[in-house]
Amino acid sequence: MKLSTNHKILIVGLGLLGGSYAKALTKKGFTVTAITRSPSSIDYALREKIISKGSAFVDEELIAEADLVVFALYPHVFIEWIRKNQKFFKPGAIITDVTGVKESIVGTIQDMLRPDVEFIAAHPMAGREVYGVQNSDDRIFEGANYIVTPSQKNTHAAIELCCDLGKTLGFAKVSEISPKEHDKMIAFVSQLTHCIAISLMTCQKTERLEDYTGDSFRDLTRIARLNEDMWSELFLINKTQLLHQLTLFERELNSLRCMLEEDDVEGLKSMMRYSTARRALFDKK
Amino acid sequence: MKLSTNHKILIVGLGLLGGSYAKALTKKGFTVTAITRSPSSIDYALREKIISKGSAFVDEELIAEADLVVFALYPHVFIEWIRKNQKFFKPGAIITDVTGVKESIVGTIQDMLRPDVEFIAAHPMAGREVYGVQNSDDRIFEGANYIVTPSQKNTHAAIELCCDLGKTLGFAKVSEISPKEHDKMIAFVSQLTHCIAISLMTCQKTERLEDYTGDSFRDLTRIARLNEDMWSELFLINKTQLLHQLTLFERELNSLRCMLEEDDVEGLKSMMRYSTARRALFDKK
Repeated sequence: MKLSTNHKILIVGLGLLGGSYAKALTKKGFTVTAITRSPSSIDYALREKIISKGSAFVDEELIAEADLVVFALYPHVFIEWIRKNQKFFKPGAIITDVTGVKESIVGTIQDMLRPDVEFIAAHPMAGREVYGVQNSDDRIFEGANYIVTPSQKNTHAAIELCCDLGKTLGFAKVSEISPKEHDKMIAFVSQLTHCIAISLMTCQKTERLEDYTGDSFRDLTRIARLNEDMWSELFLINKTQLLHQLTLFERELNSLRCMLEEDDVEGLKSMMRYSTARRALFDKK
Repeated sequence: MKLSTNHKILIVGLGLLGGSYAKALTKKGFTVTAITRSPSSIDYALREKIISKGSAFVDEELIAEADLVVFALYPHVFIEWIRKNQKFFKPGAIITDVTGVKESIVGTIQDMLRPDVEFIAAHPMAGREVYGVQNSDDRIFEGANYIVTPSQKNTHAAIELCCDLGKTLGFAKVSEISPKEHDKMIAFVSQLTHCIAISLMTCQKTERLEDYTGDSFRDLTRIARLNEDMWSELFLINKTQLLHQLTLFERELNSLRCMLEEDDVEGLKSMMRYSTARRALFDKK
Protein backbone atom coordinates (compact mmCIF):
# COMPACT_ATOMS: atom_id res chain seq x y z
CA MET A 1 0.00 0.00 0.00
CA LYS A 2 1.37 3.39 -1.00
CA LEU A 3 0.92 6.33 1.34
CA SER A 4 -1.28 8.96 -0.27
CA THR A 5 -2.57 12.33 0.84
CA ASN A 6 -6.00 10.69 1.14
CA HIS A 7 -4.71 8.97 4.27
CA LYS A 8 -5.64 10.98 7.35
CA ILE A 9 -2.79 10.89 9.84
CA LEU A 10 -3.15 11.24 13.62
CA ILE A 11 -0.10 11.84 15.78
CA VAL A 12 -0.36 10.83 19.42
CA GLY A 13 2.30 12.58 21.50
CA LEU A 14 3.27 15.94 20.04
CA GLY A 15 6.82 16.46 21.28
CA LEU A 16 9.96 17.10 19.27
CA LEU A 17 9.59 14.00 17.10
CA GLY A 18 5.79 14.00 16.83
CA GLY A 19 5.89 17.69 15.99
CA SER A 20 8.60 17.17 13.37
CA TYR A 21 6.46 14.42 11.77
CA ALA A 22 3.49 16.82 11.74
CA LYS A 23 5.56 19.56 10.12
CA ALA A 24 6.96 17.32 7.39
CA LEU A 25 3.63 15.68 6.59
CA THR A 26 1.59 18.90 6.55
CA LYS A 27 4.15 20.39 4.15
CA LYS A 28 3.66 17.39 1.87
CA GLY A 29 -0.11 18.03 1.73
CA PHE A 30 -1.37 15.51 4.29
CA THR A 31 -4.22 16.18 6.72
CA VAL A 32 -2.54 15.81 10.11
CA THR A 33 -4.27 15.85 13.50
CA ALA A 34 -2.82 15.38 16.97
CA ILE A 35 -3.61 14.25 20.48
CA THR A 36 -1.21 15.20 23.25
CA ARG A 37 -1.49 15.94 26.98
CA SER A 38 -0.41 19.56 26.89
CA PRO A 39 -3.01 22.12 25.70
CA SER A 40 -0.24 24.62 24.94
CA SER A 41 1.38 22.14 22.53
CA ILE A 42 -1.90 21.81 20.66
CA ASP A 43 -2.35 25.59 20.63
CA TYR A 44 1.16 26.04 19.28
CA ALA A 45 0.70 23.40 16.55
CA LEU A 46 -2.64 24.89 15.44
CA ARG A 47 -1.21 28.41 15.40
CA GLU A 48 1.78 27.25 13.34
CA LYS A 49 -0.62 25.33 11.07
CA ILE A 50 1.33 22.08 11.39
CA ILE A 51 -1.89 20.26 12.36
CA SER A 52 -5.45 20.86 11.17
CA LYS A 53 -7.15 19.71 14.38
CA GLY A 54 -5.91 18.68 17.79
CA SER A 55 -6.97 17.76 21.28
CA ALA A 56 -5.42 17.64 24.74
CA PHE A 57 -7.65 14.72 25.70
CA VAL A 58 -8.45 11.37 24.08
CA ASP A 59 -10.83 12.59 21.40
CA GLU A 60 -12.78 9.62 20.03
CA GLU A 61 -13.65 11.39 16.80
CA LEU A 62 -10.07 12.28 15.94
CA ILE A 63 -9.08 8.66 16.52
CA ALA A 64 -11.96 7.25 14.50
CA GLU A 65 -11.13 9.47 11.52
CA ALA A 66 -7.48 8.42 11.24
CA ASP A 67 -6.21 5.92 8.65
CA LEU A 68 -2.70 6.03 10.04
CA VAL A 69 -1.84 6.73 13.69
CA VAL A 70 1.75 7.52 14.74
CA PHE A 71 2.58 7.01 18.43
CA ALA A 72 5.40 9.14 19.83
CA LEU A 73 5.06 8.27 23.54
CA TYR A 74 7.12 6.67 26.29
CA PRO A 75 6.94 2.86 25.90
CA HIS A 76 4.78 2.23 29.00
CA VAL A 77 2.44 5.13 28.13
CA PHE A 78 2.08 3.79 24.58
CA ILE A 79 1.07 0.33 25.85
CA GLU A 80 -1.41 1.80 28.35
CA TRP A 81 -2.88 4.07 25.68
CA ILE A 82 -3.53 1.14 23.35
CA ARG A 83 -5.07 -0.93 26.15
CA LYS A 84 -7.53 1.82 27.05
CA ASN A 85 -8.31 3.40 23.69
CA GLN A 86 -7.89 0.86 20.91
CA LYS A 87 -11.65 0.47 20.78
CA PHE A 88 -11.84 3.87 19.07
CA PHE A 89 -9.62 2.99 16.08
CA LYS A 90 -11.20 2.98 12.61
CA PRO A 91 -11.49 -0.58 11.29
CA GLY A 92 -8.53 -1.22 9.00
CA ALA A 93 -6.39 1.53 10.55
CA ILE A 94 -2.62 1.12 10.52
CA ILE A 95 -0.66 2.22 13.59
CA THR A 96 3.05 2.85 13.84
CA ASP A 97 5.45 4.38 16.37
CA VAL A 98 8.84 5.99 16.98
CA THR A 99 9.88 3.93 20.02
CA GLY A 100 13.60 3.36 20.49
CA VAL A 101 13.30 -0.30 21.53
CA LYS A 102 11.27 -2.84 19.60
CA GLU A 103 11.08 -6.51 20.52
CA SER A 104 8.99 -6.28 23.69
CA ILE A 105 6.88 -3.38 22.41
CA VAL A 106 6.03 -5.06 19.11
CA GLY A 107 5.13 -8.29 20.89
CA THR A 108 3.03 -6.62 23.58
CA ILE A 109 1.11 -4.32 21.23
CA GLN A 110 0.53 -6.90 18.49
CA ASP A 111 -0.71 -9.47 21.02
CA MET A 112 -3.30 -7.14 22.53
CA LEU A 113 -4.40 -5.29 19.38
CA ARG A 114 -7.80 -5.68 17.70
CA PRO A 115 -7.55 -8.05 14.72
CA ASP A 116 -8.82 -5.37 12.31
CA VAL A 117 -6.02 -2.91 13.15
CA GLU A 118 -2.35 -3.50 12.29
CA PHE A 119 0.73 -2.28 14.17
CA ILE A 120 3.86 -1.87 12.07
CA ALA A 121 6.75 -0.60 14.18
CA ALA A 122 9.39 1.88 13.07
CA HIS A 123 12.35 3.70 14.58
CA PRO A 124 13.29 7.06 13.10
CA MET A 125 16.98 7.52 13.98
CA ALA A 126 16.72 11.26 14.41
CA GLY A 127 16.50 13.59 17.37
CA ARG A 128 17.98 16.56 19.13
CA GLU A 129 18.87 17.54 22.71
CA VAL A 130 15.83 19.79 22.99
CA TYR A 131 12.24 18.93 23.71
CA GLY A 132 8.72 19.84 22.76
CA VAL A 133 6.75 20.65 19.64
CA GLN A 134 8.11 24.22 19.86
CA ASN A 135 11.52 22.86 18.85
CA SER A 136 10.25 20.55 16.15
CA ASP A 137 12.08 20.70 12.86
CA ASP A 138 11.62 18.38 9.89
CA ARG A 139 15.22 18.97 8.78
CA ILE A 140 16.32 16.50 11.49
CA PHE A 141 15.29 13.72 9.09
CA GLU A 142 17.68 14.81 6.33
CA GLY A 143 20.56 12.38 5.93
CA ALA A 144 19.17 10.17 8.72
CA ASN A 145 18.16 6.50 8.85
CA TYR A 146 14.61 5.17 9.26
CA ILE A 147 14.20 1.57 10.36
CA VAL A 148 11.02 -0.49 9.91
CA THR A 149 10.85 -3.58 12.15
CA PRO A 150 8.17 -5.96 10.87
CA SER A 151 7.23 -9.15 12.70
CA GLN A 152 5.68 -12.35 11.29
CA LYS A 153 2.28 -10.80 11.97
CA ASN A 154 2.72 -7.86 9.60
CA THR A 155 1.26 -7.71 6.11
CA HIS A 156 3.21 -6.70 3.06
CA ALA A 157 0.82 -3.76 2.57
CA ALA A 158 1.45 -2.29 6.02
CA ILE A 159 5.22 -2.71 5.71
CA GLU A 160 5.16 -0.90 2.38
CA LEU A 161 3.04 1.91 3.84
CA CYS A 162 5.42 2.35 6.75
CA CYS A 163 8.50 2.42 4.48
CA ASP A 164 6.70 4.97 2.37
CA LEU A 165 6.09 7.09 5.48
CA GLY A 166 9.85 7.13 6.15
CA LYS A 167 10.58 8.25 2.58
CA THR A 168 7.83 10.88 2.71
CA LEU A 169 9.28 12.30 5.94
CA GLY A 170 12.55 12.86 4.10
CA PHE A 171 14.81 10.18 5.61
CA ALA A 172 17.92 9.42 3.56
CA LYS A 173 17.73 5.67 4.03
CA VAL A 174 14.83 3.34 4.87
CA SER A 175 15.75 -0.19 6.04
CA GLU A 176 13.90 -3.26 7.34
CA ILE A 177 15.16 -5.51 10.12
CA SER A 178 13.49 -7.77 12.69
CA PRO A 179 12.60 -6.31 16.11
CA LYS A 180 15.22 -8.57 17.72
CA GLU A 181 18.00 -7.50 15.35
CA HIS A 182 16.94 -3.90 15.87
CA ASP A 183 17.32 -4.13 19.62
CA LYS A 184 20.72 -5.77 19.33
CA MET A 185 21.93 -3.08 16.95
CA ILE A 186 20.40 -0.21 18.90
CA ALA A 187 21.98 -1.46 22.13
CA PHE A 188 25.30 -0.86 20.39
CA VAL A 189 24.92 2.25 18.24
CA SER A 190 22.59 4.19 20.53
CA GLN A 191 22.29 2.85 24.07
CA LEU A 192 25.95 1.99 24.64
CA THR A 193 26.97 5.38 23.26
CA HIS A 194 24.63 7.07 25.74
CA CYS A 195 26.09 5.04 28.63
CA ILE A 196 29.57 6.11 27.55
CA ALA A 197 28.63 9.78 27.23
CA ILE A 198 26.96 9.79 30.66
CA SER A 199 29.92 8.09 32.35
CA LEU A 200 32.40 10.40 30.65
CA MET A 201 30.42 13.38 31.88
CA THR A 202 30.16 12.18 35.47
CA CYS A 203 33.48 10.37 36.12
CA GLN A 204 35.35 13.62 36.90
CA LYS A 205 34.27 16.36 39.22
CA THR A 206 37.01 18.78 38.09
CA GLU A 207 35.71 22.32 37.74
CA ARG A 208 36.21 24.73 34.85
CA LEU A 209 37.09 21.90 32.46
CA GLU A 210 35.06 23.73 29.84
CA ASP A 211 37.87 26.29 29.44
CA TYR A 212 40.27 23.61 28.29
CA THR A 213 37.97 21.50 26.21
CA GLY A 214 38.26 20.75 22.52
CA ASP A 215 35.61 19.47 20.15
CA SER A 216 36.45 15.83 20.91
CA PHE A 217 35.05 16.04 24.41
CA ARG A 218 32.08 18.11 23.29
CA ASP A 219 31.21 15.58 20.59
CA LEU A 220 31.53 12.59 22.87
CA THR A 221 29.27 14.13 25.50
CA ARG A 222 26.63 15.88 23.35
CA ILE A 223 24.19 13.08 24.16
CA ALA A 224 25.03 13.17 27.89
CA ARG A 225 22.24 15.73 28.09
CA LEU A 226 19.18 13.55 28.04
CA ASN A 227 15.67 12.91 29.29
CA GLU A 228 16.22 10.62 32.29
CA ASP A 229 12.68 9.23 32.38
CA MET A 230 12.78 8.16 28.75
CA TRP A 231 16.31 6.80 28.69
CA SER A 232 16.16 4.86 31.96
CA GLU A 233 13.03 3.19 30.60
CA LEU A 234 14.65 2.39 27.24
CA PHE A 235 17.81 1.01 28.92
CA LEU A 236 15.88 -1.30 31.22
CA ILE A 237 13.56 -2.63 28.51
CA ASN A 238 16.64 -3.61 26.49
CA LYS A 239 18.80 -4.52 29.48
CA THR A 240 20.11 -7.91 28.30
CA GLN A 241 21.34 -6.60 24.95
CA LEU A 242 22.78 -3.45 26.49
CA LEU A 243 24.72 -5.39 29.14
CA HIS A 244 26.15 -7.58 26.38
CA GLN A 245 27.30 -4.55 24.38
CA LEU A 246 28.78 -2.97 27.50
CA THR A 247 30.84 -6.12 27.98
CA LEU A 248 32.17 -6.08 24.41
CA PHE A 249 33.14 -2.41 24.75
CA GLU A 250 34.73 -2.81 28.18
CA ARG A 251 36.83 -5.71 26.89
CA GLU A 252 38.05 -3.69 23.92
CA LEU A 253 38.90 -0.66 26.06
CA ASN A 254 40.74 -2.97 28.40
CA SER A 255 42.81 -4.43 25.60
CA LEU A 256 43.78 -0.88 24.60
CA ARG A 257 44.75 -0.26 28.24
CA CYS A 258 46.98 -3.36 28.21
CA MET A 259 48.75 -2.17 25.05
CA LEU A 260 49.42 1.17 26.75
CA GLU A 261 50.70 -0.51 29.90
CA GLU A 262 53.04 -2.68 27.85
CA ASP A 263 54.24 0.13 25.53
CA ASP A 264 52.91 -1.95 22.65
CA VAL A 265 53.27 0.74 19.96
CA GLU A 266 52.56 -1.65 17.08
CA GLY A 267 49.40 -2.95 18.79
CA LEU A 268 48.16 0.60 19.37
CA LYS A 269 48.90 1.64 15.79
CA SER A 270 47.20 -1.40 14.37
CA MET A 271 44.07 -0.75 16.47
CA MET A 272 44.06 2.89 15.36
CA ARG A 273 44.44 1.93 11.69
CA TYR A 274 41.48 -0.43 12.02
CA SER A 275 39.32 2.19 13.74
CA THR A 276 40.26 4.76 11.08
CA ALA A 277 39.34 2.43 8.21
CA ARG A 278 36.08 1.35 9.85
CA ARG A 279 35.03 4.90 10.72
CA ALA A 280 35.30 5.97 7.08
CA LEU A 281 32.19 3.86 6.34
CA PHE A 282 30.07 5.98 8.65
CA ASP A 283 30.40 9.39 7.05
CA LYS A 284 27.08 10.79 5.89
CA LYS A 285 27.04 10.59 2.11
CA MET B 1 55.64 41.75 25.10
CA LYS B 2 52.85 42.34 22.61
CA LEU B 3 52.86 40.52 19.30
CA SER B 4 53.25 43.01 16.43
CA THR B 5 53.45 42.68 12.68
CA ASN B 6 57.13 43.62 13.00
CA HIS B 7 57.70 40.13 14.41
CA LYS B 8 58.74 37.77 11.65
CA ILE B 9 57.15 34.38 12.17
CA LEU B 10 58.56 31.05 10.98
CA ILE B 11 56.41 27.94 11.03
CA VAL B 12 58.21 24.62 11.16
CA GLY B 13 55.93 21.78 10.03
CA LEU B 14 53.35 22.97 7.55
CA GLY B 15 50.47 20.52 7.99
CA LEU B 16 46.85 21.23 8.85
CA LEU B 17 47.65 23.18 12.02
CA GLY B 18 50.84 24.88 10.81
CA GLY B 19 49.06 25.82 7.59
CA SER B 20 46.07 27.20 9.49
CA TYR B 21 48.44 29.31 11.62
CA ALA B 22 50.07 30.61 8.43
CA LYS B 23 46.70 31.48 6.91
CA ALA B 24 45.45 33.33 9.98
CA LEU B 25 48.70 35.24 10.55
CA THR B 26 49.21 36.25 6.90
CA LYS B 27 45.63 37.57 6.84
CA LYS B 28 46.46 39.69 9.89
CA GLY B 29 49.43 41.30 8.09
CA PHE B 30 52.33 39.26 9.48
CA THR B 31 55.31 38.12 7.43
CA VAL B 32 55.13 34.34 7.67
CA THR B 33 57.72 31.87 6.40
CA ALA B 34 57.79 28.08 6.63
CA ILE B 35 60.06 25.06 6.70
CA THR B 36 58.54 21.66 6.08
CA ARG B 37 59.74 18.37 4.59
CA SER B 38 57.39 18.23 1.63
CA PRO B 39 58.25 20.48 -1.36
CA SER B 40 54.65 20.29 -2.59
CA SER B 41 53.39 21.75 0.71
CA ILE B 42 55.76 24.70 0.29
CA ASP B 43 54.68 25.14 -3.34
CA TYR B 44 51.03 25.08 -2.32
CA ALA B 45 51.54 27.61 0.49
CA LEU B 46 53.49 29.97 -1.77
CA ARG B 47 50.88 29.66 -4.54
CA GLU B 48 48.08 30.39 -2.07
CA LYS B 49 50.13 33.28 -0.66
CA ILE B 50 49.80 32.06 2.93
CA ILE B 51 53.61 32.27 3.34
CA SER B 52 56.04 34.75 1.85
CA LYS B 53 59.01 32.37 1.71
CA GLY B 54 59.46 28.68 2.40
CA SER B 55 61.89 25.82 2.20
CA ALA B 56 61.73 22.03 2.15
CA PHE B 57 65.09 21.81 3.91
CA VAL B 58 66.49 23.41 7.06
CA ASP B 59 67.22 26.85 5.65
CA GLU B 60 69.60 28.69 8.02
CA GLU B 61 68.62 32.11 6.71
CA LEU B 62 64.89 31.60 7.27
CA ILE B 63 65.61 30.45 10.82
CA ALA B 64 67.99 33.34 11.56
CA GLU B 65 65.43 35.90 10.37
CA ALA B 66 62.58 34.73 12.62
CA ASP B 67 61.60 36.49 15.86
CA LEU B 68 58.98 33.87 16.65
CA VAL B 69 59.17 30.23 15.58
CA VAL B 70 56.12 27.94 15.83
CA PHE B 71 56.81 24.19 15.86
CA ALA B 72 54.03 21.94 14.56
CA LEU B 73 55.87 18.62 14.52
CA TYR B 74 55.61 15.19 16.14
CA PRO B 75 57.10 15.39 19.66
CA HIS B 76 60.22 13.31 18.93
CA VAL B 77 60.83 15.17 15.64
CA PHE B 78 60.49 18.51 17.46
CA ILE B 79 63.11 17.51 20.05
CA GLU B 80 65.50 16.23 17.38
CA TRP B 81 65.05 19.40 15.32
CA ILE B 82 65.96 21.63 18.26
CA ARG B 83 68.98 19.49 19.13
CA LYS B 84 70.36 19.76 15.60
CA ASN B 85 69.33 23.24 14.53
CA GLN B 86 69.03 25.52 17.55
CA LYS B 87 72.38 27.02 16.68
CA PHE B 88 70.68 28.88 13.81
CA PHE B 89 68.10 30.76 15.95
CA LYS B 90 68.35 34.55 16.11
CA PRO B 91 69.52 35.68 19.58
CA GLY B 92 66.44 36.64 21.58
CA ALA B 93 64.06 34.53 19.47
CA ILE B 94 60.95 33.11 21.10
CA ILE B 95 59.85 29.60 20.15
CA THR B 96 56.47 28.00 20.75
CA ASP B 97 54.66 24.84 19.64
CA VAL B 98 51.32 23.09 19.16
CA THR B 99 52.21 19.77 20.81
CA GLY B 100 49.37 17.89 22.49
CA VAL B 101 51.37 16.83 25.57
CA LYS B 102 53.46 19.21 27.60
CA GLU B 103 55.33 18.21 30.75
CA SER B 104 58.09 16.08 29.23
CA ILE B 105 58.38 18.25 26.08
CA VAL B 106 58.66 21.53 28.01
CA GLY B 107 61.27 20.04 30.35
CA THR B 108 63.33 18.44 27.57
CA ILE B 109 63.33 21.48 25.27
CA GLN B 110 63.91 24.08 27.99
CA ASP B 111 66.79 22.04 29.45
CA MET B 112 68.63 21.79 26.15
CA LEU B 113 67.86 25.23 24.70
CA ARG B 114 70.39 28.03 24.24
CA PRO B 115 70.08 30.55 27.09
CA ASP B 116 69.36 33.44 24.69
CA VAL B 117 66.30 31.74 23.18
CA GLU B 118 63.06 31.10 25.11
CA PHE B 119 60.56 28.26 24.64
CA ILE B 120 57.02 29.05 25.73
CA ALA B 121 54.72 26.07 25.10
CA ALA B 122 51.12 26.24 23.91
CA HIS B 123 48.38 23.84 22.92
CA PRO B 124 45.78 25.05 20.44
CA MET B 125 42.70 22.87 21.05
CA ALA B 126 41.64 22.78 17.44
CA GLY B 127 41.91 20.27 14.65
CA ARG B 128 40.09 18.30 12.03
CA GLU B 129 40.11 14.72 10.73
CA VAL B 130 41.97 15.74 7.59
CA TYR B 131 45.65 16.39 7.07
CA GLY B 132 48.01 18.63 5.22
CA VAL B 133 48.39 22.29 4.42
CA GLN B 134 45.93 21.79 1.53
CA ASN B 135 43.17 21.36 4.13
CA SER B 136 44.27 24.20 6.37
CA ASP B 137 41.55 26.56 7.49
CA ASP B 138 41.85 29.33 10.06
CA ARG B 139 38.15 29.02 10.93
CA ILE B 140 39.04 25.96 13.05
CA PHE B 141 40.20 28.40 15.74
CA GLU B 142 36.80 30.12 16.07
CA GLY B 143 35.11 29.26 19.36
CA ALA B 144 38.07 27.07 20.39
CA ASN B 145 40.40 27.11 23.41
CA TYR B 146 44.10 27.97 23.36
CA ILE B 147 46.21 26.91 26.33
CA VAL B 148 49.57 28.39 27.26
CA THR B 149 51.64 26.21 29.61
CA PRO B 150 54.46 28.27 31.16
CA SER B 151 57.07 26.75 33.44
CA GLN B 152 59.18 28.44 36.14
CA LYS B 153 61.74 29.18 33.43
CA ASN B 154 59.46 31.39 31.36
CA THR B 155 59.52 35.17 31.40
CA HIS B 156 56.44 37.31 31.73
CA ALA B 157 57.22 38.86 28.33
CA ALA B 158 57.25 35.53 26.49
CA ILE B 159 54.06 34.35 28.20
CA GLU B 160 52.32 37.56 27.16
CA LEU B 161 53.55 37.19 23.57
CA CYS B 162 52.30 33.61 23.40
CA CYS B 163 48.87 34.54 24.81
CA ASP B 164 48.75 37.32 22.26
CA LEU B 165 49.48 34.82 19.48
CA GLY B 166 46.44 32.78 20.58
CA LYS B 167 44.21 35.87 20.48
CA THR B 168 45.62 36.95 17.11
CA LEU B 169 44.89 33.50 15.66
CA GLY B 170 41.25 33.99 16.60
CA PHE B 171 40.82 31.60 19.53
CA ALA B 172 37.76 32.28 21.68
CA LYS B 173 39.51 31.67 24.97
CA VAL B 174 43.17 31.84 26.00
CA SER B 175 44.12 30.19 29.32
CA GLU B 176 47.31 29.52 31.26
CA ILE B 177 48.00 26.35 33.23
CA SER B 178 51.14 24.48 34.25
CA PRO B 179 52.48 21.74 31.93
CA LYS B 180 51.60 19.13 34.58
CA GLU B 181 48.01 20.32 34.98
CA HIS B 182 47.71 20.47 31.21
CA ASP B 183 48.72 16.83 30.81
CA LYS B 184 46.29 15.71 33.51
CA MET B 185 43.45 17.62 31.91
CA ILE B 186 44.32 16.57 28.36
CA ALA B 187 44.49 12.92 29.41
CA PHE B 188 40.82 13.30 30.30
CA VAL B 189 39.25 15.62 27.71
CA SER B 190 41.28 14.50 24.72
CA GLN B 191 43.22 11.26 25.13
CA LEU B 192 40.57 9.30 27.05
CA THR B 193 37.94 10.39 24.50
CA HIS B 194 40.14 9.09 21.68
CA CYS B 195 40.61 5.75 23.49
CA ILE B 196 36.84 5.49 23.85
CA ALA B 197 36.16 6.37 20.21
CA ILE B 198 38.73 3.84 18.98
CA SER B 199 37.38 1.05 21.20
CA LEU B 200 33.79 1.82 20.21
CA MET B 201 34.77 1.63 16.56
CA THR B 202 36.64 -1.67 16.88
CA CYS B 203 34.67 -3.64 19.51
CA GLN B 204 32.10 -4.88 16.99
CA LYS B 205 32.74 -6.44 13.64
CA THR B 206 29.08 -6.29 12.54
CA GLU B 207 28.73 -5.24 8.91
CA ARG B 208 26.43 -2.62 7.41
CA LEU B 209 25.97 -0.92 10.80
CA GLU B 210 26.17 2.39 8.95
CA ASP B 211 22.65 1.85 7.58
CA TYR B 212 21.21 1.84 11.09
CA THR B 213 23.30 4.51 12.68
CA GLY B 214 22.11 7.77 14.19
CA ASP B 215 24.10 10.87 14.97
CA SER B 216 25.02 9.62 18.46
CA PHE B 217 27.30 6.94 17.11
CA ARG B 218 28.71 9.22 14.43
CA ASP B 219 29.52 11.90 17.02
CA LEU B 220 31.15 9.48 19.44
CA THR B 221 33.36 8.00 16.75
CA ARG B 222 34.28 11.08 14.68
CA ILE B 223 37.72 11.09 16.30
CA ALA B 224 38.18 7.33 15.77
CA ARG B 225 39.70 8.36 12.45
CA LEU B 226 43.15 9.43 13.46
CA ASN B 227 46.84 9.56 12.65
CA GLU B 228 48.21 6.45 14.35
CA ASP B 229 51.83 7.63 14.44
CA MET B 230 50.95 10.89 16.17
CA TRP B 231 48.41 9.50 18.61
CA SER B 232 50.35 6.43 19.70
CA GLU B 233 53.26 8.77 20.47
CA LEU B 234 51.05 11.21 22.42
CA PHE B 235 49.40 8.37 24.39
CA LEU B 236 52.71 6.83 25.43
CA ILE B 237 54.32 10.14 26.42
CA ASN B 238 51.36 10.78 28.74
CA LYS B 239 50.82 7.14 29.71
CA THR B 240 50.60 7.53 33.52
CA GLN B 241 47.94 10.23 33.38
CA LEU B 242 46.00 8.46 30.64
CA LEU B 243 45.93 5.16 32.55
CA HIS B 244 44.62 7.02 35.59
CA GLN B 245 41.81 8.63 33.57
CA LEU B 246 40.96 5.28 31.98
CA THR B 247 40.54 3.87 35.46
CA LEU B 248 38.19 6.66 36.57
CA PHE B 249 36.08 6.20 33.45
CA GLU B 250 35.98 2.41 33.66
CA ARG B 251 34.84 2.62 37.30
CA GLU B 252 32.05 5.01 36.41
CA LEU B 253 30.87 2.91 33.47
CA ASN B 254 30.92 -0.09 35.75
CA SER B 255 28.75 1.62 38.34
CA LEU B 256 26.24 2.40 35.58
CA ARG B 257 26.37 -1.30 34.61
CA CYS B 258 25.59 -2.30 38.20
CA MET B 259 22.58 0.01 38.31
CA LEU B 260 21.31 -1.61 35.12
CA GLU B 261 21.86 -5.13 36.45
CA GLU B 262 19.98 -4.26 39.65
CA ASP B 263 17.14 -2.38 37.90
CA ASP B 264 18.11 0.65 39.95
CA VAL B 265 15.89 3.17 38.12
CA GLU B 266 16.46 5.94 40.65
CA GLY B 267 20.24 5.50 40.49
CA LEU B 268 20.17 5.65 36.68
CA LYS B 269 17.95 8.72 36.67
CA SER B 270 20.09 10.51 39.20
CA MET B 271 23.25 9.81 37.17
CA MET B 272 21.50 11.06 34.02
CA ARG B 273 20.32 14.23 35.74
CA TYR B 274 23.90 14.91 36.89
CA SER B 275 25.33 14.31 33.41
CA THR B 276 22.67 16.56 31.89
CA ALA B 277 23.40 19.41 34.29
CA ARG B 278 27.16 19.07 33.88
CA ARG B 279 27.01 18.88 30.08
CA ALA B 280 25.18 22.21 29.91
CA LEU B 281 28.42 23.94 30.98
CA PHE B 282 30.23 22.74 27.87
CA ASP B 283 28.11 24.31 25.15
CA LYS B 284 30.05 26.72 23.00
CA LYS B 285 28.94 30.21 23.93
